[in-house]
Order: sequence, then C-alpha cells, then structure tokens
Amino acid sequence: MRPTSDARCRLIPLQTVTDSRGTLVVVENRTRIPFRIARIFYVSVRKKGTVRGNHAHKTLQELIICLNGRIAVETRTRRSRKVFRLSDPTVGLYLPPRVWSVQRTLSDRALYLVLASKKYQESDYIRDWAAYLAHPRASHAR
Amino acid sequence: MRPTSDARCRLIPLQTVTDSRGTLVVVENRTRIPFRIARIFYVSVRKKGTVRGNHAHKTLQELIICLNGRIAVETRTRRSRKVFRLSDPTVGLYLPPRVWSVQRTLSDRALYLVLASKKYQESDYIRDWAAYLAHPRASHAR
Repeated sequence: MRPTSDARCRLIPLQTVTDSRGTLVVVENRTRIPFRIARIFYVSVRKKGTVRGNHAHKTLQELIICLNGRIAVETRTRRSRKVFRLSDPTVGLYLPPRVWSVQRTLSDRALYLVLASKKYQESDYIRDWAAYLAHPRASHAR
Repeated sequence: MRPTSDARCRLIPLQTVTDSRGTLVVVENRTRIPFRIARIFYVSVRKKGTVRGNHAHKTLQELIICLNGRIAVETRTRRSRKVFRLSDPTVGLYLPPRVWSVQRTLSDRALYLVLASKKYQESDYIRDWAAYLAHPRASHAR
C-alpha cells in the first residue's frame, strides 16, 4: 500500500498574522493539519539536553510547535531516521501515527506545544522499540 | 433564566505533571473545560501595554492561558467588570460566550495561548460596545 501524504513526517507552515500589536498564529481543525484537535499539551523544560518522548503511537496524530527556545525531534521508523530542528513558532512538525519520536531540548528554557488528535489513552502508546518493530502496521509509517 | 456555571468567567486549574524533565500541562476536549477545541491560536507580543481583543463573541467559548510574561484580561458584561491577571501557565481563564474582553500585556515578551470552541467566523464577533448592549442575549453573560 502506498502511504498517503499524511503518512509522512513533515513541516507545516502555520497561518500567521503579524501587525504592530504582535504575532498571532492559528491552527484550526482539519485546516493545514489533517486531524481534529482532541487534546493539547505544552511542555516547559528548564535545561538544555533534556530528553522526552521515546515512544510511538498506534493511531495518534500530533503537531509539535516550538514556542520558545530550540528543540530537536528525532523521528524513526523501520525504514528511516530524521531529525527536525524546531525553533520557529510559525511552523509545526506533523507526526503521523506509528512514528517513533524523541524530543530533545537544544536550549535552556524551551517551551513546545503539541496538538493531538485523540484524548490520552495509555493503550495507544508503544513504549518499546522491539514492540514497535513487531507492530503489524509499523511499516506503513515513513 | 439562571445561568449555568459555564455562563461565568472563571479561572480553571489545568492538569499538570512535573518531574525532573520539566512541566507538562494538558487540556482535553470537555475535560475541565466545557467545550471541544476547534481552533487554537497563540499571540506573541513584544511590548508591555499592548492591547488586543476589545470584542465579544455571540457563541464562541475560549480558554486563555498565559505561557510567558504577564497579561491582564478585562471582562465586561452589561452587569459587571472584572480584571484577571494571568501569569501562571498552569491556570486558564474560561470565557463563556457574550462576554466583552480586552487583553493587555503587563510585561514585555508576553505569550498567551487561546483554545476556542469554533473555527473562525467573522459573523460571531460583536465589535461595537453599543451593539453588544443591544444584543438580545448579552444579559445572560456574567
């Protein structure tokens, strides 16, 4: 099966309005992103070099936006490994389901926002790399 | 008609997980907040004293969270006027429909996030105070 374009990790430029009062960045359900937002979370990290993530999701789609400082998001699938460096609050990184990802802060006082397509469900997580490789649909992700 | 609790502007403590890697704050659809998220936006303002908002919505519900710096949100209805000072990223200000609101930055480099219950629709805005007072349902808001 040829994956749709949404099976690929990719950077998405976000709708941005700048005027003398500042910069406003908007994300709407199923506009620029291929999912509806069910949950948002943001992570504030004091120290450079802090690692989070290190798991995949069976069905969850996410958009990661770095709001302050700099982070690196490493994405891994059975076939590929990529590193996305994020520091621009007007660009989001789309993560389709079944991509293993790791977030690492590249600066002190980093802040990043994640938009997620589902509510929290522990059963959606794959927390072990061997289990990830064994997952029947892991190979669909790129 | 007696308004439900959701007719009132109020501060909502958000679900927060802190460990050695940092602080994570989560908001899920209809969990702690009474609406589903259809749109998010964030506003980055360089200068203290910058004013935004100055309108009401006919149906939109919002949650405003200050992620960096300090802001004041003034809420006005036909009956009352309140000022909420926000600086804690673990607390959101819920705004029900039909509340006039104004955001003012109290520090340089303020950043705030807004979760909204609907996609953008210009017809949902009331941008004139006299029109607000004349709106048939304005008096329901507190």
